[in-house]
Amino acid sequence: MSNLSMVPEAAPPSQGAVPCCTPLISAELSTPDAERLATVFKALSDPVRLRLLSRVASHPAGEACVCDIADVGVSQPTVSHHLKKLREAGLLTSQRRRTWVYYRVDPDVFAALASLLAMPART
Amino acid sequence: MSNLSMVPEAAPPSQGAVPCCTPLISAELSTPDAERLATVFKALSDPVRLRLLSRVASHPAGEACVCDIADVGVSQPTVSHHLKKLREAGLLTSQRRRTWVYYRVDPDVFAALASLLAMPART
Repeated sequence: MSNLSMVPEAAPPSQGAVPCCTPLISAELSTPDAERLATVFKALSDPVRLRLLSRVASHPAGEACVCDIADVGVSQPTVSHHLKKLREAGLLTSQRRRTWVYYRVDPDVFAALASLLAMPART
Repeated sequence: MSNLSMVPEAAPPSQGAVPCCTPLISAELSTPDAERLATVFKALSDPVRLRLLSRVASHPAGEACVCDIADVGVSQPTVSHHLKKLREAGLLTSQRRRTWVYYRVDPDVFAALASLLAMPART
């Protein structure tokens, strides 16, 4: 079974199912799974993207208007570029409502990543 | 409190303590924490590094000789480069014994990352 059944190949529709990934400790990653997972971690490898993501994730109701999260010290086009990368990695979903775009984290993708990294506690 | 108290600034000695990170959903990342975390995710953003890491993590006893994990289709100097990046990010520790270097994952760092990404299940 793939380690990454819940990590999307591209910005997906929400899945609804509870994710379940094989932890890295249990099975060696296949090359295709490693390539897909590397894309997700690459999206997480920029400090501005991480700050934007944490702003959305920690926002009340788990959703944030771009107007509420965009003051991270970079230009508006740069914010848009970073949000696009997070969407493409499946970490955020977006929805336009009138003037503004609203962003929401995909909890299934986060849970899949957390499961993948899970390890027994050190004794 | 920092989200990243257990994510090391550089390849650290093992800590022993059970890690405990504030999930992204609970608190916005500070700029310094985002920069440190981005470095760790950058180390995870390469497919060959992920395959090497999963080979160590899934190896019996949680430790692997470089001689057992290095056939990932790239040259030996490239393997060494990738293992160095994983060590620098604190994801692996290494120990030379006679001829070979042995690698081990740091479960505290993995647990810290998994906690950071934890989200309530979708209902």
